[in-house]
Amino acid sequence: MKPKTAITPTREENYPEWYQQVIRAADMAENAPVRGCMVIKPWGWKIWENIRRQLDVEFRAKGVENAYFPLFIPLSFFEKEAKHVSGFAKECAVVTHHRLEQNKEGKLIPAGELEEPLIVRPTSEMIIGESFSKWITSYRDLPLKINQWANVVRWEMRPRIFLRTSEFLWQEGHTVHASKEEASDFALQMLQVYNRFGHEVLALPFITGKKTESERFPGAVDTYTIEGMMQDRKALQGGTSHYFGQGFAKASNIRFRDAEGAEEFGWTTSWGASTRLIGAMIMTHSDDDGLILPPRIASSHVVLVPIIHKDEVRAEVLSYCHQLAEELRTLDYHGQKIDVIVDERDLRGGEKTWSWIKKGVPIRLEIGPRDIAEDKLVMARRDKSHKEKTFLKKQEFVQNLPILLDEIQNTIYQRALKYRDENIVKIDDKESFYAFFTPKNKERPEIHGGFAFTHWCGEAASEEQIQKDLGVTIRCIPDGMEKEAGTCPFTGKPSPQRVLFAKSY
Amino acid sequence: MKPKTAITPTREENYPEWYQQVIRAADMAENAPVRGCMVIKPWGWKIWENIRRQLDVEFRAKGVENAYFPLFIPLSFFEKEAKHVSGFAKECAVVTHHRLEQNKEGKLIPAGELEEPLIVRPTSEMIIGESFSKWITSYRDLPLKINQWANVVRWEMRPRIFLRTSEFLWQEGHTVHASKEEASDFALQMLQVYNRFGHEVLALPFITGKKTESERFPGAVDTYTIEGMMQDRKALQGGTSHYFGQGFAKASNIRFRDAEGAEEFGWTTSWGASTRLIGAMIMTHSDDDGLILPPRIASSHVVLVPIIHKDEVRAEVLSYCHQLAEELRTLDYHGQKIDVIVDERDLRGGEKTWSWIKKGVPIRLEIGPRDIAEDKLVMARRDKSHKEKTFLKKQEFVQNLPILLDEIQNTIYQRALKYRDENIVKIDDKESFYAFFTPKNKERPEIHGGFAFTHWCGEAASEEQIQKDLGVTIRCIPDGMEKEAGTCPFTGKPSPQRVLFAKSY
Repeated sequence: MKPKTAITPTREENYPEWYQQVIRAADMAENAPVRGCMVIKPWGWKIWENIRRQLDVEFRAKGVENAYFPLFIPLSFFEKEAKHVSGFAKECAVVTHHRLEQNKEGKLIPAGELEEPLIVRPTSEMIIGESFSKWITSYRDLPLKINQWANVVRWEMRPRIFLRTSEFLWQEGHTVHASKEEASDFALQMLQVYNRFGHEVLALPFITGKKTESERFPGAVDTYTIEGMMQDRKALQGGTSHYFGQGFAKASNIRFRDAEGAEEFGWTTSWGASTRLIGAMIMTHSDDDGLILPPRIASSHVVLVPIIHKDEVRAEVLSYCHQLAEELRTLDYHGQKIDVIVDERDLRGGEKTWSWIKKGVPIRLEIGPRDIAEDKLVMARRDKSHKEKTFLKKQEFVQNLPILLDEIQNTIYQRALKYRDENIVKIDDKESFYAFFTPKNKERPEIHGGFAFTHWCGEAASEEQIQKDLGVTIRCIPDGMEKEAGTCPFTGKPSPQRVLFAKSY
Repeated sequence: MKPKTAITPTREENYPEWYQQVIRAADMAENAPVRGCMVIKPWGWKIWENIRRQLDVEFRAKGVENAYFPLFIPLSFFEKEAKHVSGFAKECAVVTHHRLEQNKEGKLIPAGELEEPLIVRPTSEMIIGESFSKWITSYRDLPLKINQWANVVRWEMRPRIFLRTSEFLWQEGHTVHASKEEASDFALQMLQVYNRFGHEVLALPFITGKKTESERFPGAVDTYTIEGMMQDRKALQGGTSHYFGQGFAKASNIRFRDAEGAEEFGWTTSWGASTRLIGAMIMTHSDDDGLILPPRIASSHVVLVPIIHKDEVRAEVLSYCHQLAEELRTLDYHGQKIDVIVDERDLRGGEKTWSWIKKGVPIRLEIGPRDIAEDKLVMARRDKSHKEKTFLKKQEFVQNLPILLDEIQNTIYQRALKYRDENIVKIDDKESFYAFFTPKNKERPEIHGGFAFTHWCGEAASEEQIQKDLGVTIRCIPDGMEKEAGTCPFTGKPSPQRVLFAKSY
């Protein structure tokens, strides 16, 4: 039997497998021969390039400069900061040799053992801290705001493409400030950068907030997060920003002389977002026909499908399509040019159409000889049903394209926002809370209620018990959602505000 | 005694040390705590970003798409291609463990030994080949043209910043074609991309040519190179392009079905350029006062130095400078916007001036209250003597800025071209050849003649002998230089053409 949707299984049938199949059908990425690593294919890579380019603009506006620090960190650096080790160094790639040799049987074996093993960076706090301690001497050197785009490695036992891979790509920003207030404020500013980028560019309606103590980054005084809701109602952390106080500066010996000549440790922050954002975007927007790309991050905005039923019209139709593509490519769209594909492949029409639906291109145009004669075109939008087609005058389409793309962007965003808000439930008693998160069907343990917006007294013990019982954690103490005091349903104690509980990736 | 130049030692006194000091004075990069690795600081990183952005445009125009492949390659992959191993795998970083544990004394030690060691990629032929073998089934999938920007690791015993580091950044392009001719031609096209980029953007007058068999990339049928002359008259290889025939496709099992249904191995190429290009640029253009940046690759094009002799004028001068900077930033320069710095630092004027000279900014403007009143400015060009200053009307400067930058670019290029051509010497006898490359002063072994343009019969034995005697290699069998037959001065045999001999980095 022919499946009714382009992706099998559907979200409803098996969400985790649906996710893998969306990526495969869109030709975005695949698993690498090394367990836990991925190959990012051109269609997926363009999205990462778009993320990078647009975040870089935001970072620059905050006075941040890019730099690059080494891949390897000496093992001894991890002994400087005990908290850091317990948080990160556990699962990491350790380089112990610097040569290969052939043994007597001709087999290659590691040789040239290093005096000190090297760790492939799981994050670069320690090595950047070492540099900062040399770069900074005076208050005149502050604030120092540095970012790097890099690959990092954290050994993953249960890898999932984009979401959790042993090697992933990210940016990590690290700043040093001359005062506590400035540093703490900067960590929040960067959280807002991520949040705005999420809402406006990725169309992801993140919720911002602070992590509880148990969920904080190792060594941080405050960890701020953006949390998104996926279509299985689980939470995904999209980026974090940390305020370290002076603790990290003390571990790395980052000191400066203030205007009066007194020596002081710096106040530091760090903040990062990764290729995980691509996973969040796929999981939030895509449907049972495959990927849906928000125009502002799309690998390509428009695909032109020439409709050629007989060879005599081929040259005319192709030339018309290429001309139109050139015209569209001159248009500006949020600081970039419109990206257009002309699909000249020698394939059946239906196959072509479905390939672009599965790849999530926002706008598909079909152009045949009759359309050319009538100066019109047939448009299909990926945010609408694939059966819905619109006939448009060509010039009307060209003039309105940026507005049309913004409209698609907004539809996708509003849909995600609506889904999120429908699945955040205020829960005020323990029993309902436990029922909310308990799967009705043991065969489908992933199906549960959503986000619970529930009072919590602030005690780590109840937080821990909930995690043990339900696999549910406090995703954040949210900003920008109503703040009212109440009673903790788990302890009966007073609670300063509701927090967000959820299962998470 | 005060040194007469900003950089000590001068090029003449100690070229290798001068190079390190130029990098240090420009604040471009520094050695990392891990031996052989480097930290690329913002001033150096911007140059790499500029290289990347501009090469990407060229690559796209050739139909190349970017992607990303994993950092780790299983050891067994290196056993597939024996030639590859002998060429590369010797000095590489080997990951043998995936965890750290604390031992009884609380010391961190490697744990979780891997079943198969992983190699940190020294180049990605083998892992990309594995993907290509899965991606390609039909001639319809060809040509496949993929590039990645990535970090690679080759253990270096004698590291030098930018030129030879254990970790470096590069791009590696890999293509598969359906015919020998197309692949072979594409390798040459990419050589021309590098060459044009070198001449036009980096102002580096590279010489292109083919490598001799002994200097070829492991496994390549042909290796093409761009070779530059540094100011110590040594050669530096700026990029290479390789044509592999079907050899690499056979090792990686890259097969396709042609239009007639017959199965065939693909013909492949690869081509790469790295952070070495930054080293080549520094070594070629800089002088005894520090870095000189060609405008088309410069981290920044213009620096405005406000001249403030008393506090009352501060606000006016700064506001004028910022306004001018904003005006300049709207100007286009070869597809980017003009980058402008306003130097507000609380430093003495002389110190400021020298800091920008050492950083190599193409144009420095000094602006004080009197200049503002007269609507003029004082300009100093980095390609001219630091004593030479020009007084200009502001509007004249603004209007002519892109032209002025091109003029500076051209001056820098012509100077390098002249130096190169003055130091390529036609040599027709063995005695003169040996004298040309033999240091006159044993204390300064680096001082020698330059490039010798000399006949060679094509025999590897004489090539080897010369390398043994003089440390001189054939950099390339050059294109675009006169081709006339002659006699090999080393063997007395007929020679089809002169080749370029040089000492090299």
